Amino acid sequence: MQPVDTLILGPLVVTMDAGEQILDVGAVAVRDGTIVAVGTRGDLEGVTAAQMIDATGMLVMPGLVNAHTHLGDSLFRGLVEELPLEAWLERLWISEREFVSRESVELGARLSLAEMIRGGTTCALDMFWFPEAAADAALGAGFRLVTGPIFFDFDGPDGVAAEGRIATGERWLERYASEPLITPCVQPHNQLTVSPEGLRAARDLAGRAGALFHTHCSETATEVRQTVERFGRTPAAHFDELGILDERTVLAHCVHLSDDDFARIRRAGAAVLHNPLSNLKLGSGIAPIARMLEEGIPVALGTDGPVSSNDLDMWTAMRFAGLLQRGVHMDPVLTPAREIVRMATTAGAEALGLGDRVGRLAEGYRADLILIDLDRPHLAPMYDVYGHLAYTVGRDDVRSVMIDGRWVMRDRSLATIDDATVIADMVELGSAIHHHAAALDQA
Amino acid sequence: MQPVDTLILGPLVVTMDAGEQILDVGAVAVRDGTIVAVGTRGDLEGVTAAQMIDATGMLVMPGLVNAHTHLGDSLFRGLVEELPLEAWLERLWISEREFVSRESVELGARLSLAEMIRGGTTCALDMFWFPEAAADAALGAGFRLVTGPIFFDFDGPDGVAAEGRIATGERWLERYASEPLITPCVQPHNQLTVSPEGLRAARDLAGRAGALFHTHCSETATEVRQTVERFGRTPAAHFDELGILDERTVLAHCVHLSDDDFARIRRAGAAVLHNPLSNLKLGSGIAPIARMLEEGIPVALGTDGPVSSNDLDMWTAMRFAGLLQRGVHMDPVLTPAREIVRMATTAGAEALGLGDRVGRLAEGYRADLILIDLDRPHLAPMYDVYGHLAYTVGRDDVRSVMIDGRWVMRDRSLATIDDATVIADMVELGSAIHHHAAALDQA
Repeated sequence: MQPVDTLILGPLVVTMDAGEQILDVGAVAVRDGTIVAVGTRGDLEGVTAAQMIDATGMLVMPGLVNAHTHLGDSLFRGLVEELPLEAWLERLWISEREFVSRESVELGARLSLAEMIRGGTTCALDMFWFPEAAADAALGAGFRLVTGPIFFDFDGPDGVAAEGRIATGERWLERYASEPLITPCVQPHNQLTVSPEGLRAARDLAGRAGALFHTHCSETATEVRQTVERFGRTPAAHFDELGILDERTVLAHCVHLSDDDFARIRRAGAAVLHNPLSNLKLGSGIAPIARMLEEGIPVALGTDGPVSSNDLDMWTAMRFAGLLQRGVHMDPVLTPAREIVRMATTAGAEALGLGDRVGRLAEGYRADLILIDLDRPHLAPMYDVYGHLAYTVGRDDVRSVMIDGRWVMRDRSLATIDDATVIADMVELGSAIHHHAAALDQA
Repeated sequence: MQPVDTLILGPLVVTMDAGEQILDVGAVAVRDGTIVAVGTRGDLEGVTAAQMIDATGMLVMPGLVNAHTHLGDSLFRGLVEELPLEAWLERLWISEREFVSRESVELGARLSLAEMIRGGTTCALDMFWFPEAAADAALGAGFRLVTGPIFFDFDGPDGVAAEGRIATGERWLERYASEPLITPCVQPHNQLTVSPEGLRAARDLAGRAGALFHTHCSETATEVRQTVERFGRTPAAHFDELGILDERTVLAHCVHLSDDDFARIRRAGAAVLHNPLSNLKLGSGIAPIARMLEEGIPVALGTDGPVSSNDLDMWTAMRFAGLLQRGVHMDPVLTPAREIVRMATTAGAEALGLGDRVGRLAEGYRADLILIDLDRPHLAPMYDVYGHLAYTVGRDDVRSVMIDGRWVMRDRSLATIDDATVIADMVELGSAIHHHAAALDQA
């Protein structure tokens, strides 16, 4: 084999490849940002490498994919607690209108990227104001981000009028079209905040740009009721009848689905982005993902934004996704651990249209991978690798993170973000947000 | 003030005292293992101390109380996955009979203690074979443990015949009576594995020794049905009619309670030990803790053993306890964050009969406290302290841990357990357990 850039020798390799092969003592070789070989240590230890990593006693696996979040939301982490979604959003939007700017969103995005990298997430789908702020933060951090123009029928804090969003969106998509780390996505908020015409126009824009189409769907019972009152049909039926539900559509939440919704989503080949923590926290409910999986509807996993989920920890999201269905249905065989690990890796990448490049350790895939320390009290002994990954490995166990062939964290040190400065800047801005909110609460 | 042993200066102090006071820039003084003062930094910075800790930018709070676990279970962490409780227990007991010994249980307990200390837990209620192994491990580690004799009507892997358990238990209780870190507890497994006479004899033993009385109760629907079939009444009614349900009784689980059960538990003043992760994982269900709290039934929080919960992470347990009820009842106002923090501190200590000594940072309380780093990407900004503690602080954020006035972890280094050796020993034993289990599965 030709010399490679990086050779990782000796770890337990969880490939998540087509055969879901696990190598007890393996090796991974990376050249030009691509995985060029995965094998046993014996297969690869003769390969010449510019950088040789001894990963004996560690575990290597694909980086996690956070399939639904709002990075800039970290500005408001925990600001609004204990309100139902609709009242909560209204309250949140007051602070957003006051404090959301190009600069603050980029700060929030950098903080969120630092958190995600530290926790082993290498790819995320972001929906927020000023998507260029998140995209630029991701490019600076070497992070793989799916993001793009958002759509609302009202004037947002970004200063873009509703009627200007298509033109602004078009420029955005052109601007980032050639960035390999940015995957474009067109994102109307939902069917209550964007008119049928707006949804169709956004879908057309996504089609022209070859972009993913992402929206919220059936998050709360109230939203479903209001949609039925206004349009005479459920959110999924509404999207379907508008002709905007297909295999390039990803639907966040889907907590409240009718049998007809299930059939429509399945037929369309759309994917569901499941956010268990956020759905619980806001009292929205528990999405029927056991049934989705049974019916073959693709389910990816997300944290949602840190306002509702408080953090961006995909390990915790896995644990909730895996355990909730069992409790609700009183059936301990549902959502096995391996299925949960898929949701956070391969299924996430596939839902975001990156299934041919990301989510597996396999030849030809981009090198998005994480090294996990196994010498922790909570990880000994290990009888079941997927069980460990789904139920006890945590953000603190991630030692090093590579995205697109570049180490963005080595031995717990971030290489592309100065997180001490980002945290200090955020604490300062948070103080202003806190005072504003306190004054509101007194008024 | 007289000189003190340790003065912690400058942290955000979450006291959990009677007024649930929070001090933005505070101080805690410790002498002879007791908290002698809690105040603002200004109040205490003149005090002379043998050891001065600069905790600026950190948070100090009471150590967490894990109110229901099985420490030795770490031997079998993740060994049996995806079976309902009854089949799961049968399978687990095969491995237990083969591998449980005085030595292996002490190894498992030391591993579990290392994990708990690293995660900020300073007190736990343990139920397992050879309780002297856990007690000795706790004494060696300087950990506050509630444990004691367990009761089954069959011969256990500890070599004690059912009819010898009272005498063995009596000797156990005498042996540890004078150890301040060990709180005695008498623990029949449940009403199906221990006869009414056995339960009464165990309760009498607890009464004579002034010990806590701890048992499982209404964990699964199957167990409740079998109890009704055998005794004509539910588990809680059975305990109550036997005269063994009172304010010194703690009931693990209580997932399936009738209205009558609620009334009996409330009248008795017994406490419920809630283990959300284990109940979900085994498909047992979701305990109605929102109703318990509403009715004034004391609820403490536990992880259960690492076989069912996979780890002993009380932060994750808090997050599940806090979020589950909201999703199930679709009500985001249930189980507010402060209530969840109480469950893991004051309510835990009170349930275990330690409410006058543990669970608060207040004058006269034993110095069981933890220092938490706040300069983490997932902890900035902070608008709501209890929200942070319930929903995003994790085991990795705990920097230092003091139990009974002694630092058992400083700056992430354990002072009383050599965890590298314990992990290595456990990995070796785990390999034997794994081979035995693999041979069983093939047979």
